[in-house]
Amino acid sequence: MHSRVRRGGPALPDAVRVVTAGSGPIRVAAGAQPRVVVTAGATNSLVDVAGLRVGHAQRVGDGYRTGTTVVLAPPGGMVAGVDVRGAAPGTRETELLDPRNLVERVHAIVLTGGSAYGLSAACGVMDRLADAGIGFPVEGGVVPIVPAAVIYDLGRGGAFRAVPDGSLGAEAYDAAAHSHGPDPWTCGSVGAGTGAVAGGLAGGIGTASVVLPSGVTVAAMAVVNAVGSVLDPAGGRLSGTRYGLPGEFDHLREPGEDEVAAWPGATVTSFNTTIGVVATDLTLTKAQCGKLAGVAHDGLARAIRPAHTMVDGDTIFGLSTCALPFPFLGTTSPASPELGTVGFEGAAGSPRGVEGAAGSSRGPEGAAGPAPVGAGRNAPGAAGLHDVLAAGADVFSRAVAHAVLAATGRDGAPAYRDVFPSAWGK
Amino acid sequence: MHSRVRRGGPALPDAVRVVTAGSGPIRVAAGAQPRVVVTAGATNSLVDVAGLRVGHAQRVGDGYRTGTTVVLAPPGGMVAGVDVRGAAPGTRETELLDPRNLVERVHAIVLTGGSAYGLSAACGVMDRLADAGIGFPVEGGVVPIVPAAVIYDLGRGGAFRAVPDGSLGAEAYDAAAHSHGPDPWTCGSVGAGTGAVAGGLAGGIGTASVVLPSGVTVAAMAVVNAVGSVLDPAGGRLSGTRYGLPGEFDHLREPGEDEVAAWPGATVTSFNTTIGVVATDLTLTKAQCGKLAGVAHDGLARAIRPAHTMVDGDTIFGLSTCALPFPFLGTTSPASPELGTVGFEGAAGSPRGVEGAAGSSRGPEGAAGPAPVGAGRNAPGAAGLHDVLAAGADVFSRAVAHAVLAATGRDGAPAYRDVFPSAWGK
Repeated sequence: MHSRVRRGGPALPDAVRVVTAGSGPIRVAAGAQPRVVVTAGATNSLVDVAGLRVGHAQRVGDGYRTGTTVVLAPPGGMVAGVDVRGAAPGTRETELLDPRNLVERVHAIVLTGGSAYGLSAACGVMDRLADAGIGFPVEGGVVPIVPAAVIYDLGRGGAFRAVPDGSLGAEAYDAAAHSHGPDPWTCGSVGAGTGAVAGGLAGGIGTASVVLPSGVTVAAMAVVNAVGSVLDPAGGRLSGTRYGLPGEFDHLREPGEDEVAAWPGATVTSFNTTIGVVATDLTLTKAQCGKLAGVAHDGLARAIRPAHTMVDGDTIFGLSTCALPFPFLGTTSPASPELGTVGFEGAAGSPRGVEGAAGSSRGPEGAAGPAPVGAGRNAPGAAGLHDVLAAGADVFSRAVAHAVLAATGRDGAPAYRDVFPSAWGK
Repeated sequence: MHSRVRRGGPALPDAVRVVTAGSGPIRVAAGAQPRVVVTAGATNSLVDVAGLRVGHAQRVGDGYRTGTTVVLAPPGGMVAGVDVRGAAPGTRETELLDPRNLVERVHAIVLTGGSAYGLSAACGVMDRLADAGIGFPVEGGVVPIVPAAVIYDLGRGGAFRAVPDGSLGAEAYDAAAHSHGPDPWTCGSVGAGTGAVAGGLAGGIGTASVVLPSGVTVAAMAVVNAVGSVLDPAGGRLSGTRYGLPGEFDHLREPGEDEVAAWPGATVTSFNTTIGVVATDLTLTKAQCGKLAGVAHDGLARAIRPAHTMVDGDTIFGLSTCALPFPFLGTTSPASPELGTVGFEGAAGSPRGVEGAAGSSRGPEGAAGPAPVGAGRNAPGAAGLHDVLAAGADVFSRAVAHAVLAATGRDGAPAYRDVFPSAWGK
C-alpha cells in the first residue's frame, strides 16, 4: 500500500477526516481562502461518484502493450463536456458536447491507447451499449453516445499496429458492466494506461476523489502519458502530491539527492498525451461540465510540466451524474441519493426551492448571481460551482500522482518507485 | 442528362464559357459586385480539384439502405479545417483540425450514413491507408488522419442496426483509390447519400465545381439529408439552382402550380444532417480551410431551409490540396500545375514573389492587407481569399441542388423529378 487513502472500504482513515474550520456552506470572498472541509471518498477513486462504473482491458505481449478503459454512466446517462488543450488530440464525438448542441447526456467515455487507431475501441463499446438498449432514444432504437480520446502508445509493445480494436473496447465495457478484471480503483499499468509513459518514467492510470463539506463528490481519472515531467522542477518529488489530502501522500518523503542526481530526466519520445475524466454527482449543465473539464486541465498543468504541448493531445471530459440537485448546497447535511436523478429534460425539482437555496449560498459580497434557469435550473450559479471547479483541478493533480506511483516499470520506462526508492524511506 | 454541365469530358459546353466582363484580377469593393469570370471544371464535381479522388460504397437490401463516401487526398495529404454548425453532429477527429493544433494535413475524409454507428467506417479507411503506408509519419510507421462526419439514416432500409462498418469504409476507399464503383462525379442515391432524404424528398450526394478567372478551382460535395426544405419558400423551384452557373440549370423550369399545390411539404422525420466538403487547389492555411468550411455553410443555408437545426448535425470540411501557391493570383494566366505542391512545412515559393503578387492583387481601396506570414506564406490574405470563399458558398448550394435532382425516389421519399415533372417541361 503506497497510499493510506487510495484503496478503501466504507471506512475512511482518520487521517483524512480533517475538519479545518467550520461546517457551514462554503463562502467565496475575493482574496480569502474558502474554509474547506474535505475527505476522500470511500475508494479515493472515480467510482466514488455514485453510479459511475470503470472497466479496464489490456493486451500485453505478442507485440502489444496497450489497453482501453471505459467509464460507464449510470442509467439515463451523464451530462458531459470536454476541453481539448493538447495540440495533437485524437478524438471522437466531441463536437456534440458543445453546449449549443442537442445531446445532453453521454452513455460512456472511452479512454484508449492506440493513437487514432484506438478509436476503434469505441465502436465495440457502442455495440455493447446498443445491445443492452442503452443510448439516445430515436425512432426504432437507440444511438449510444460514446465520446472518446486516445493516448499515443504505438510500438511500445514492439509491434506498431498492435492497437486496441472493437473487441478490446467490448472487453473493457464488460469489465465495467459486470465487474470483471482489475478493480475500478486500481491505478498504474492497466487499461488505457498499460503502455503509458510519463516524462521518461512509467505512466499509467490514476484516480482520486474528494467529498466536499456540502456532500458533493468530485473525482478524477487520468491516463498519464505525458512528454512532460511529473516531478518538481528541482528534486524528485511528484508534483501532484503537493495537492494531496491530509494523509494521502504523507507516507512519501522527498527523494534523496543522489537519486535525483542520477535520474537523467525526461527525453522527448515522439508523441504522448494525457487524457482523463473529472466527474461529480452535483447537477451541472453541459456548459458547466465543459468548464469543469477546463479547470481540471489546471490540475494537469500543476502535476505535469510542460503540459498541453504540440506533441500531447491532452483531453479531459467533465461529467455530472446529476444525482444531487443544487438546492441541498447550503443545508447542513448532504443530500441523500433519494433526492433522485434530476434530469435536464425532466420535470424534477421545485424552481422555488432552487431559488431559495441559491440565495442561501450567496457570499457576503452577494457575488453568487442567479442560478441557471431553464434546463439547468437545478445546477449551481457561479459561486456554487466555485468549490467544485477548484476540487476538480486538485483531484486531477492527485490522480496524476497516483498513476505514476502505481505504474509498473519496464525497459525504457522505469517506475517512479524504482528510480526513487528513498521516497518510501528505503 | 438533367444538367448540361454536370458530367463532362475535357471539353466544356460553350454555355458555361461565359465571360461577363473583363479578365483582370478580381477586385473587391464595398457595395459592388465583383466582376466574375467563371466556368465549371471538366466534370463539374469535386474531382475537378486536381488530385482529389472520391469513392462511394453502399448497401441496399436485407434491411440496409445506407452507404459511405471517401474523399482521398493527393499524395502528401491535404490541409483541412472544419465547421460544425448543426446541433446534432456525429464526428471523429475534428479536434485536431483546430488551427492551433499540430497536424496540418489529413489523408481522407469519410462521409457516411449510420449515425454514430457509421463512424466505424473510418476505421476501415484508416486500415487501408496504413496498409498503403499513407499517414502522419511517426517513429515506426504512420498514423492516417481521417476526420469523419455522419448522417442519420437509421432504419431507412428496414433494419435499425444495418449500418456502415469498417468493411464498407474499406470498400469506399478501394473505389476511390482504384476507380471502382460509381464515377466520382455521380450524384444522387450513392455512397453516403444512399439513404438520404431532403425535406420529404429523396436526398443524396451532389457535387459541383467552379474555375475562377485566376485559375483556382473550388468544388464541393454535399450529402443532403436535411430536415429542412430544398425548395423555394413559395413554389417548387430548388433553391440551390438560383446559384447555378450560366447554363447549369437552364434546362429546368419553374414547376407548375398544380404540382406545387399537391406537394405536402416536408415532415420532420426524427434526425437528419447534411454533411460535405468544400475544396480548392489554392494553397490555404488550416485556419483558412476552416473559414472556407464556414462560408460553405452559407451556401447550405441558401439551399436548405431551415438549416443547422437541433435535429441536423450539419458539418462541412474545408480542404486545400495546396497545388497552387498564392503568387499566381493577379497574373493574367492561371498557374500551371508545374508550380508544384507547395507544402506548409516545405521551403517552396519565394517570399519576394509572394509579396509582389499580393501587392498586385490589392483592390483600389488597398484593402487586401498583407498575406499570411510564416507557415502560410503561400496562402492568400483577406482579399485574395474573398472570391474563393464566395465561390465555396455557391458551389455548395449548387451541389445541394444536384443531389436532389439526381436522387432516386422510394416509398416515403419521392424524387424531385417525380414530384415536379413539369420542371423538365413534362
